[in-house]
Amino acid sequence: MRRFIVLGHTAPTDPDFSLDDLAGAAGRLDVLARCVNSAFFLSHGLRESVRVFLVLSDTVTIRLEGVELRYMNPDERNIAGLLRQALDSRAEAIGHSEVESTPGIYVSNRGFEDVLKATAREGAIIQLHEEGTPLADVEPPENPAFVLSDHQDFTTAEHDLLEEYTTKRVSVGPKALHADHVISVVHNYLDTEGYSI
Amino acid sequence: MRRFIVLGHTAPTDPDFSLDDLAGAAGRLDVLARCVNSAFFLSHGLRESVRVFLVLSDTVTIRLEGVELRYMNPDERNIAGLLRQALDSRAEAIGHSEVESTPGIYVSNRGFEDVLKATAREGAIIQLHEEGTPLADVEPPENPAFVLSDHQDFTTAEHDLLEEYTTKRVSVGPKALHADHVISVVHNYLDTEGYSI
Repeated sequence: MRRFIVLGHTAPTDPDFSLDDLAGAAGRLDVLARCVNSAFFLSHGLRESVRVFLVLSDTVTIRLEGVELRYMNPDERNIAGLLRQALDSRAEAIGHSEVESTPGIYVSNRGFEDVLKATAREGAIIQLHEEGTPLADVEPPENPAFVLSDHQDFTTAEHDLLEEYTTKRVSVGPKALHADHVISVVHNYLDTEGYSI
Repeated sequence: MRRFIVLGHTAPTDPDFSLDDLAGAAGRLDVLARCVNSAFFLSHGLRESVRVFLVLSDTVTIRLEGVELRYMNPDERNIAGLLRQALDSRAEAIGHSEVESTPGIYVSNRGFEDVLKATAREGAIIQLHEEGTPLADVEPPENPAFVLSDHQDFTTAEHDLLEEYTTKRVSVGPKALHADHVISVVHNYLDTEGYSI
């Protein structure tokens, strides 16, 4: 299974935002919606063996499961609408428990460290960063969890946490790319090299 | 220079659509907006040496020039707004002449064949198709123009035209991907292999 953790530094944690202003008042939720698109969509269906964690303002985490997802279209507005429904269900999530808002989409009151801890138990954590080892020089581990940041760089605190949990720091190329483009490249690399993960 | 031609089979040719329904009433303009995003955006700026042709319903063509673009944000709504402004300027485009609607965005009453003819004069035409030669086995020519289709496959007429103009048919991997994801992969391949185009 391919796993992606995306940090949304300015993302909303409540559902009171308009789908008409994702890049503004909704705290750049457009960036996270595009990451969800890149992580799951193929021309003729969804990638089933993919799990995405969106960590919103280090407070709320939305988990999306490819094999369970329904009713998702690839446009930002549709994806953001599903994320808003998840935030709307957040009040029902007690402690670190998860609530399923729509098929395959789960919300919990967890921050980055909680997600890192949980994902590290199930496979290696790989930080995608422009200064890492080239992807082509890395033998991908089973169950990799790739960690990416949104339009802002990782904070110092996030860097320190990643130092603790990351097994590898990997770069997809010589240019710094948007997180959603990185996800497309990682998928294509794993597809082309024939990795069964 | 890297050039991309994207066919929008159901795309609008007039500006009377709402930005709230890009994936519906606006004829899947969301797909083309994402292609523009993938073609131009880097983390810290735009790719300047890129030209994109969006061919809308084989009737109108919008040309975007990386080096001239201004005021573009990566979200679908912003890009679609700029495309709508281009369609709004279309009435001023007489014959095959182009009108600049906003910096770096030009509209003309040209269909696919006109665009193919013009781009073929300036470099090789490469069809991106899941059944082509793997990208890694192809030495990219100078000034390549990569041709992609939106959410619908190429029509028979488009296939026939491409047969006439295409020098190569190239695949980016074993899975059929959305056009915008293909653009991300092509860029990354050319970046990583160090091609100066």
